[in-house]
Amino acid sequence: MSKPDAVEPATVHNAMNPDETPELRQLYADFEAGHMMPLWTQIGNLMPKHPMPRAVPHIWKWSDLYPLAKRSGDLVPVGRGGERRAIGLGNPGLEGRPYISPTLWCAIQYLGPRETAPEHRHAQNAFRFVIEGEGVWTVVNGDPVRMSRGDLLLTPGWNFHGHQNVTDKPMAWIDGLDIPFSYQNDVGFFEFGSEKLTDITTPQYSRGERLWCHPGLRPLSGLANTVSSPIGAYRWEHTDRALAEQLKLEEEGYPGVLEKGHAAVRFVNPTTGGDIMSTLRAEFHRLRAGAVSAERREVGSRVFQVFEGKGCVVLDGVSRILEKGDLFVIPSWISWSLQAESQFDLFSFSDAPIMERLNFDRTMINGQLS
Amino acid sequence: MSKPDAVEPATVHNAMNPDETPELRQLYADFEAGHMMPLWTQIGNLMPKHPMPRAVPHIWKWSDLYPLAKRSGDLVPVGRGGERRAIGLGNPGLEGRPYISPTLWCAIQYLGPRETAPEHRHAQNAFRFVIEGEGVWTVVNGDPVRMSRGDLLLTPGWNFHGHQNVTDKPMAWIDGLDIPFSYQNDVGFFEFGSEKLTDITTPQYSRGERLWCHPGLRPLSGLANTVSSPIGAYRWEHTDRALAEQLKLEEEGYPGVLEKGHAAVRFVNPTTGGDIMSTLRAEFHRLRAGAVSAERREVGSRVFQVFEGKGCVVLDGVSRILEKGDLFVIPSWISWSLQAESQFDLFSFSDAPIMERLNFDRTMINGQLS
Amino acid sequence: MSKPDAVEPATVHNAMNPDETPELRQLYADFEAGHMMPLWTQIGNLMPKHPMPRAVPHIWKWSDLYPLAKRSGDLVPVGRGGERRAIGLGNPGLEGRPYISPTLWCAIQYLGPRETAPEHRHAQNAFRFVIEGEGVWTVVNGDPVRMSRGDLLLTPGWNFHGHQNVTDKPMAWIDGLDIPFSYQNDVGFFEFGSEKLTDITTPQYSRGERLWCHPGLRPLSGLANTVSSPIGAYRWEHTDRALAEQLKLEEEGYPGVLEKGHAAVRFVNPTTGGDIMSTLRAEFHRLRAGAVSAERREVGSRVFQVFEGKGCVVLDGVSRILEKGDLFVIPSWISWSLQAESQFDLFSFSDAPIMERLNFDRTMINGQLS
Amino acid sequence: MSKPDAVEPATVHNAMNPDETPELRQLYADFEAGHMMPLWTQIGNLMPKHPMPRAVPHIWKWSDLYPLAKRSGDLVPVGRGGERRAIGLGNPGLEGRPYISPTLWCAIQYLGPRETAPEHRHAQNAFRFVIEGEGVWTVVNGDPVRMSRGDLLLTPGWNFHGHQNVTDKPMAWIDGLDIPFSYQNDVGFFEFGSEKLTDITTPQYSRGERLWCHPGLRPLSGLANTVSSPIGAYRWEHTDRALAEQLKLEEEGYPGVLEKGHAAVRFVNPTTGGDIMSTLRAEFHRLRAGAVSAERREVGSRVFQVFEGKGCVVLDGVSRILEKGDLFVIPSWISWSLQAESQFDLFSFSDAPIMERLNFDRTMINGQLS
Repeated sequence: MSKPDAVEPATVHNAMNPDETPELRQLYADFEAGHMMPLWTQIGNLMPKHPMPRAVPHIWKWSDLYPLAKRSGDLVPVGRGGERRAIGLGNPGLEGRPYISPTLWCAIQYLGPRETAPEHRHAQNAFRFVIEGEGVWTVVNGDPVRMSRGDLLLTPGWNFHGHQNVTDKPMAWIDGLDIPFSYQNDVGFFEFGSEKLTDITTPQYSRGERLWCHPGLRPLSGLANTVSSPIGAYRWEHTDRALAEQLKLEEEGYPGVLEKGHAAVRFVNPTTGGDIMSTLRAEFHRLRAGAVSAERREVGSRVFQVFEGKGCVVLDGVSRILEKGDLFVIPSWISWSLQAESQFDLFSFSDAPIMERLNFDRTMINGQLS
Repeated sequence: MSKPDAVEPATVHNAMNPDETPELRQLYADFEAGHMMPLWTQIGNLMPKHPMPRAVPHIWKWSDLYPLAKRSGDLVPVGRGGERRAIGLGNPGLEGRPYISPTLWCAIQYLGPRETAPEHRHAQNAFRFVIEGEGVWTVVNGDPVRMSRGDLLLTPGWNFHGHQNVTDKPMAWIDGLDIPFSYQNDVGFFEFGSEKLTDITTPQYSRGERLWCHPGLRPLSGLANTVSSPIGAYRWEHTDRALAEQLKLEEEGYPGVLEKGHAAVRFVNPTTGGDIMSTLRAEFHRLRAGAVSAERREVGSRVFQVFEGKGCVVLDGVSRILEKGDLFVIPSWISWSLQAESQFDLFSFSDAPIMERLNFDRTMINGQLS
Repeated sequence: MSKPDAVEPATVHNAMNPDETPELRQLYADFEAGHMMPLWTQIGNLMPKHPMPRAVPHIWKWSDLYPLAKRSGDLVPVGRGGERRAIGLGNPGLEGRPYISPTLWCAIQYLGPRETAPEHRHAQNAFRFVIEGEGVWTVVNGDPVRMSRGDLLLTPGWNFHGHQNVTDKPMAWIDGLDIPFSYQNDVGFFEFGSEKLTDITTPQYSRGERLWCHPGLRPLSGLANTVSSPIGAYRWEHTDRALAEQLKLEEEGYPGVLEKGHAAVRFVNPTTGGDIMSTLRAEFHRLRAGAVSAERREVGSRVFQVFEGKGCVVLDGVSRILEKGDLFVIPSWISWSLQAESQFDLFSFSDAPIMERLNFDRTMINGQLS
Repeated sequence: MSKPDAVEPATVHNAMNPDETPELRQLYADFEAGHMMPLWTQIGNLMPKHPMPRAVPHIWKWSDLYPLAKRSGDLVPVGRGGERRAIGLGNPGLEGRPYISPTLWCAIQYLGPRETAPEHRHAQNAFRFVIEGEGVWTVVNGDPVRMSRGDLLLTPGWNFHGHQNVTDKPMAWIDGLDIPFSYQNDVGFFEFGSEKLTDITTPQYSRGERLWCHPGLRPLSGLANTVSSPIGAYRWEHTDRALAEQLKLEEEGYPGVLEKGHAAVRFVNPTTGGDIMSTLRAEFHRLRAGAVSAERREVGSRVFQVFEGKGCVVLDGVSRILEKGDLFVIPSWISWSLQAESQFDLFSFSDAPIMERLNFDRTMINGQLS
């Protein structure tokens, strides 16, 4: 598409700004009475030159989050009605809403020794990522799924799920959901399930994994494609090995890494090769010590959590130091780059499937549209 | 999926509601300071049993809208900066935002005699629908498109477009866009184009129509599928004929209508058979005099404009009378049914492609999930 | 893919050609007894450097075909068992099989005054194209479809169909099917239907057309995609207009034609924008007087019939004169180019959907892979 | 689709069979001279009521095949020109062609100690399956792939590939290709590559595996979908475990097996979840001792090789005993059922992707269309 005679918006005078007269005042009053609003006074705000998110880049320190979650464990029982001892991270730019971005919910969830979070289901898609600890099983549509360090666990929309801690130690993890998107667009349904878990066994591997986690193999009993991944748990042992192999291939001089010193995998639905759920993308990134990722801007919002190692992120030109467990959000079109001091492992999730399915995705890498 | 031991939410006590103590107060204060918010106090609002839209069903009378648009024409010049003399309909439930629903923008646009609205482009998808009048050409990426009564005109995302009125009479029409969705999710880009139209000719048919509006025929020069429809104008003559044929087939005893006495067509992208644009669906409905449509609930929001005829709509159980030009919005999961007094023609648009692409779509017809 | 150390096959000695010994003779005899055959003696034939079709380019003159069809009409009654008075064109390279190419069947079918060809259905996909005449209705799954000059009529796999001539004049047309492909790969099913047509009315437009032939419009009663096009008849009036518009756009300086002086459309399934049937592609080409098309090679086979005008085709370097009604076949990877003496209209069909769906498609234009 | 007034073909008299007259004889002679053939005399053969394959069910005993392959190794050197010491299985019904079915090629390939089969590439898709032995690496586009017992190795169309045996023992395996389909439809291209292998290293795992064989994980450097699977080797350890898990799940009372006592997996392309290559499907089946599979008929042809265990197959009603290594072919629409005496492991490949992509697939299970 050619760009005929383009003009920079910043330099443009709004020609639709007549002198205020009684007639004009009356017109605007009549608009208001009639539930109408002129575009011409709002267009710059409503339709900016590029995304101008109200959400801001922000970092939550794990060293702050975990103690607060622990105190909740002491003071607030878990149970029906409140459903989960989950504390949402609220973007400072989003006016007191518990949204880490306009589309994404991210919370730390805490389950004390021997506690159970009752079963329910909802249209909202959800996952859990475990930064540390063990001892909890999440039961998804009756299939008990062990939660261990480094694992990604899915509870896709409309699957019943509850959690139980079978140990004498507490456990915490992060939850990611599309609650803000669902709330904003009025798509949510919710239903209570069993108060107690429907299966209290604690197998090493879930049935979903036993059927689906064989690379390149698909059960003949599962030939219909599914909207969400049938894999309930993406185990750290696989993620770690996949990332390590990419870096080894790089050392050997072969393709594999995303960019120099930067290995990365996406968690996918094996029935399609696409994202794990309709609204949420999950990835794992590993940078070698000393590696620096390209500067990226993406339409949509993304969250990272440091899994292991030290480094920093440059967000909108400002460098911030990161340690294990730290969480940060990158709102739409905010530039970001990772820098690794040690080997640097980060889990990431985003709303990219929304952007891609609706054809709003754009990416700029080092200042170039890709 | 079975529903083990389900409990009605309304009857549920929130077990996570401890007595307020100094420790609890301090915990909640520390949450706030740390940009954190507990789920357990908000879950009922954030994750309702079914969509509980803040947007409300509402009707705007054409007899109110048009005079206000005309007064704008007298008082506010059209031009660069404000860009369009478009007056957005603001849902009374959405707190003063110019959104007819959480996802959709709907405006009446007015162009006076010999006026030109300058060219620009934006990531937001847009269409125009003409309830009456003629004399304006919209130029989309350099292709002049006549706008006449009953026509649906597209300006898909990132296509330059401007309008000119070549007559001595004003013209008004409705605009539909995904501005609220784009604004909320920070996906918008915007660029000014030529101040004057890049092509001021006024052909009867646009070049897009001349290439693409031959039923079942695809130019060999256009074999790559396109994200949005390459048809710039869906003409009333075709829409009218398609609807008339459905009703004739019904009279002859053959399939064709959507339901008894109710003909309906969807405007589609001929390269895929799917919706005209990634976020917006457009349809045209015709009911015979006396026909009553089923009661429907849909996830997502929908707008109707009466094109011709008389009837009423039952919105959430309340019947409202409709006349030519009247616009109404149906928020998510609000029940609706149309009743035709005379032959009743209605244009409709919605955010259904968003819901379907993200797998949030659900429809209930006469109380049954379909 | 790089091409390491490539060697021209023509210059290669077969290193696997040992001197014949009694042991070798015995080995080869044992192979034969065991239903085994060595690759090394056959590879050059089985796996040529590029497609080496046994089928040859060939032209059938309409002036030969029609009189023979007429004589069949005098001598052979039409009826159950033989089913159709269709005379297949047999490629001279294909050893007496009634195949115009390895995948395609092409026949002239002749129906005398007041004759009826009984109903049946088969897995094979079929179409008819009418070079001249009128007066026959084909009934497809109970929907009577008028057959007139320039029309393309579909009878997709497993649809019941029969024909009747309601006039006192005979009519002939061409049939295209995937019979050779179906026979070779053992995919065919066949079932007799009604001896008399299930609907003997003779409407101007079929019900399929009345529902589906409105450009860019899809009935809400037909939202499920279909394997084959729901349009039973692609009318000449639309085809002619689409081609004329492309040439007018070219005159006006706008895109639209396939190449200089060469307009072309593909007949498509409106539910997908893809080919009319799973195995058969149909197109219409129009060249201006004096125009010459690029030299093309395609994987798969293609048939043309001259609809109107004069010109010639260069097949594998040999120019051949063409007149109205003449049919010719282009086997796989044979080069072809059209040259128009007058305005030159040609109908074409091919097995391209097979090649594309199985990723065997390759095209070379003027010696370059495209 | 209703079936109006259906008639059984067997009982039908061919009404188009006039008495032979001089005129008729002349007509048929003129047809022949004009390269034309009437449908009415051939329709029963060309368009049977259901697939009537000329190919027949047939079993090749491994105890016959292997010794013959070994003798070839002694008598025929491997090298350029003949390219491969592969001996194709020729279906007894297919008149001396080296085709195991109309679409499929199956051969035993034998590589002596320290031998190398030179590199080449072709449009035809190929795989190898290893019933016993080890010591050979196949190099696919420069990536060396170990071949070991139970492994499935891919060389998709247009990938350069050669093989080397790095041991002092011979090795044999089976090759599966779409040579008959490609030959019949004239889609083949072929190119010689390096005479010596481009990489003679012998790594435990190929680079393709190291990038792609992590369940549910996709490298960010590999986000573009590929026509064929990027996995060069599907290892026995994964296949065995996947099958064992299905049977364990069955014992525990959970879904997973295809049918009672019958576990089965399909080898898939992880970028799409679909078949490994455009024309070839590969599966592995395991039956418990005593299990009997349903009686199936499928459109298209399928080959099985017994990997381990004893049992029999009932082919078109005739039971045949099977032992390790035995190969058998099931032509289109021939009924088949497996019966396991011991635990019974079988590799299978077929042309099912062709049938499905062209919508010719039909399956009948225990006499019911599924």
